[in-house]
Amino acid sequence: MPEFFNVLPPDEARVLLLAQITAVLPPETVATEDALGRVTAVTITAPHPLPPFRRSTMDGYAVRAADTYGASESLPAFLHVIGEIPMGQPANISLQTGQAALVHTGGMIPDTANAVVQVEHTQMVGYRSSVIGNALAVRGEQPAVSSKQSTTGSPQLPNYPITQLPTLPFEIEVFKAVAVGQNVLQVGEDVTQDAEILPAGHWLRPQDVGGLLALGIMQVAVARRPCVGILATGDEIIPPEQAAGPGQIRDINSYTVAGMVRQAGGIPVLGGIIADDFDALYTAAANLLATGDMLVLSAGSSVSIRDMTVQVIEKLGQPGVLLHGVATRPGKPTIVGAVAGKPVLGLPGNPVSAMIQFDMFGVPAIYRLQGVKELPRQGVVWARLSQNIASESGREDYVPARLEDGPEGLVATPVFGKSNLIYTLVNADGLIKVPLNKNGLQAGEWVHVRIF
Amino acid sequence: MPEFFNVLPPDEARVLLLAQITAVLPPETVATEDALGRVTAVTITAPHPLPPFRRSTMDGYAVRAADTYGASESLPAFLHVIGEIPMGQPANISLQTGQAALVHTGGMIPDTANAVVQVEHTQMVGYRSSVIGNALAVRGEQPAVSSKQSTTGSPQLPNYPITQLPTLPFEIEVFKAVAVGQNVLQVGEDVTQDAEILPAGHWLRPQDVGGLLALGIMQVAVARRPCVGILATGDEIIPPEQAAGPGQIRDINSYTVAGMVRQAGGIPVLGGIIADDFDALYTAAANLLATGDMLVLSAGSSVSIRDMTVQVIEKLGQPGVLLHGVATRPGKPTIVGAVAGKPVLGLPGNPVSAMIQFDMFGVPAIYRLQGVKELPRQGVVWARLSQNIASESGREDYVPARLEDGPEGLVATPVFGKSNLIYTLVNADGLIKVPLNKNGLQAGEWVHVRIF
Repeated sequence: MPEFFNVLPPDEARVLLLAQITAVLPPETVATEDALGRVTAVTITAPHPLPPFRRSTMDGYAVRAADTYGASESLPAFLHVIGEIPMGQPANISLQTGQAALVHTGGMIPDTANAVVQVEHTQMVGYRSSVIGNALAVRGEQPAVSSKQSTTGSPQLPNYPITQLPTLPFEIEVFKAVAVGQNVLQVGEDVTQDAEILPAGHWLRPQDVGGLLALGIMQVAVARRPCVGILATGDEIIPPEQAAGPGQIRDINSYTVAGMVRQAGGIPVLGGIIADDFDALYTAAANLLATGDMLVLSAGSSVSIRDMTVQVIEKLGQPGVLLHGVATRPGKPTIVGAVAGKPVLGLPGNPVSAMIQFDMFGVPAIYRLQGVKELPRQGVVWARLSQNIASESGREDYVPARLEDGPEGLVATPVFGKSNLIYTLVNADGLIKVPLNKNGLQAGEWVHVRIF
Repeated sequence: MPEFFNVLPPDEARVLLLAQITAVLPPETVATEDALGRVTAVTITAPHPLPPFRRSTMDGYAVRAADTYGASESLPAFLHVIGEIPMGQPANISLQTGQAALVHTGGMIPDTANAVVQVEHTQMVGYRSSVIGNALAVRGEQPAVSSKQSTTGSPQLPNYPITQLPTLPFEIEVFKAVAVGQNVLQVGEDVTQDAEILPAGHWLRPQDVGGLLALGIMQVAVARRPCVGILATGDEIIPPEQAAGPGQIRDINSYTVAGMVRQAGGIPVLGGIIADDFDALYTAAANLLATGDMLVLSAGSSVSIRDMTVQVIEKLGQPGVLLHGVATRPGKPTIVGAVAGKPVLGLPGNPVSAMIQFDMFGVPAIYRLQGVKELPRQGVVWARLSQNIASESGREDYVPARLEDGPEGLVATPVFGKSNLIYTLVNADGLIKVPLNKNGLQAGEWVHVRIF
């Protein structure tokens, strides 16, 4: 275990940890509607093209494009409107040369049409152009509200004199030529049949759920949510519901870590608080690891407990501790390990260190257990630093910061405080990262602030 | 209603909408542990200081600082160690001049001490300095694992010859002076008693939950989660589980909007698909609005349905439609309204428009109903644009984009596609905003990409 005494930069340490996760958790089938935030277990392909039929993208007339060629304001094309295609119905109208069919946005295009002329570029012979537009606009309207028509018409269409379409057939003038395919959504233009729509390992967002349902995919195979065991250790730690006597501190880390586990799609399993006793800690850890997919030991802050954590992880199995120490502040004494493909982390006892380190190693591990290939990109804002931040080269520093709107954009003000102080994070909007090779940051510099 | 025919820029439109939300939803009490993502209903203050006692931030010796003044490598101070303060116990040791007490990180400091000397700056008289450090490190260790000690010791401490602390009292040399308060966390240094720890209207993150539990606050008053009624309209729209016949399209918007409602802390209430009939739509909308806190009508894409939506919102109550039309692409025909303090939105039928517009108006409204004063900052990344984007001045354009890592940082490639195509958003990682006053963006420009 030559890495053991090394203090690695965080990116290298994370690679070492994620390399241990060789298998994705087994899949389970869930309703697509409930799959938000889950991760696809298999590649999903389109069972049919989308849209499955040609649709109009405008209110207007389905036409044969050639019938409009050369049409202009001064020399309009004349077409006979022989029917209307109702929404949600097949376009059972056969167009001959010189014929057109009324169609609404989203409506189906007849086989014999190949373009749509938008209503604004037409005029009904003998009427102002607005007549048809408004007649289209009021189909299905109730008399009860037609008195409000003068204020509720579509802005681009003036008031109209009639509320009924003229009797079919009627004649229109077309003032602008359309090309083949114009204003028409082609079959498969959204997705073609059998196209790969989502890869395995994709974290599902609202649009992904919508995309699946659009294809009638009502169920989806997703990775089981990882169960993450969380143990707090330290003779000084008591449950939050207890009154704290002298020397006693309530458990924070179990709950902050549980929240971060939930946000990453995992299920936190709180194992409680274990006294500073090797056997007790080993037994609790072994049980949680056996029934779970990942283990987090929130070590007490003293050296003795940190070292006991190392020994417990070593005894749990192979490879055990991967490294003890990460080149960051806060969080240097983090223990990164794995046992038989399950990540095992020993977090520093300080609440700020624990959260930052869990974000650095625990959150990516939870995603990776679900098979996520590219981790969801983290939200970052760009802000101007209000004061200097000192740092040491060779170490990544994470400084909590508060964000405020200033005249030139966001201003980031560091919230300085020891990593024992949870309220430095409560009072912060995000974290400023001082890169490994920089000796601090200057007031006035533009910096990236991770929303945290 | 003079605003009615105006097309407002999105920021002004949002101000108009949020001004209608005059009351926060009533509070309910939940377990703090389950309050992640909820919004505080009242200001919360600290019932006691944190920490409630003085704690050591180091492993070392609690001392009277004056006893170390002038100490150096060549002229150490000698102190008598008269006891050890166990973790989680009161520091019942009274120090006289020249005396010290062993203390662990996080341990309580005796009343008579005012600083901590870290163990690395001391040496036990007659031993190497490592002796005490390692003795501290192995308290509670089991013989079963002590054989692994050579590989598991803390990196900065060499192997030690003994596993027991010397019998008390013993003598140490101190090589470095400490100031009053050094390595000591003061009472209330994290939060003082009665300090305002969280304002009303605060969206609770993992660290906030931890901060509350650290103070023993086991329950918290939060705003009730807003119930958001969602109706889809359009004769062409069918439920996702149905096979789509010619001219029919499965409902997408109900589900993408429901996902966004959940992400913002609301409860989506799906009202189903309503035919293009004024009475049916009005009845369904009135029922959902009466039992809910907000209403979203995902209008069909045709002009007739959009206008019917306007009329329904007008009939639902005052003030009704606030504006019909927002200066964005996609999403211009959005209807923004409110009825008796409840936001009512009419979204365009196109799925891309619907999502972008709901993000622009619906999500802020859900937060505001819960009393959130400052909306959670949205995640943005900075990327170099791979190709030109055309736009029109006077309109905010939102262009879906895919992000890839390039040699100089992230590269954003626009996913062009009509706003009817849900897969433009499925295939995108975020949205590029082209500001109101810009005529497009150039390839090679650095742009903000909203994670979406």
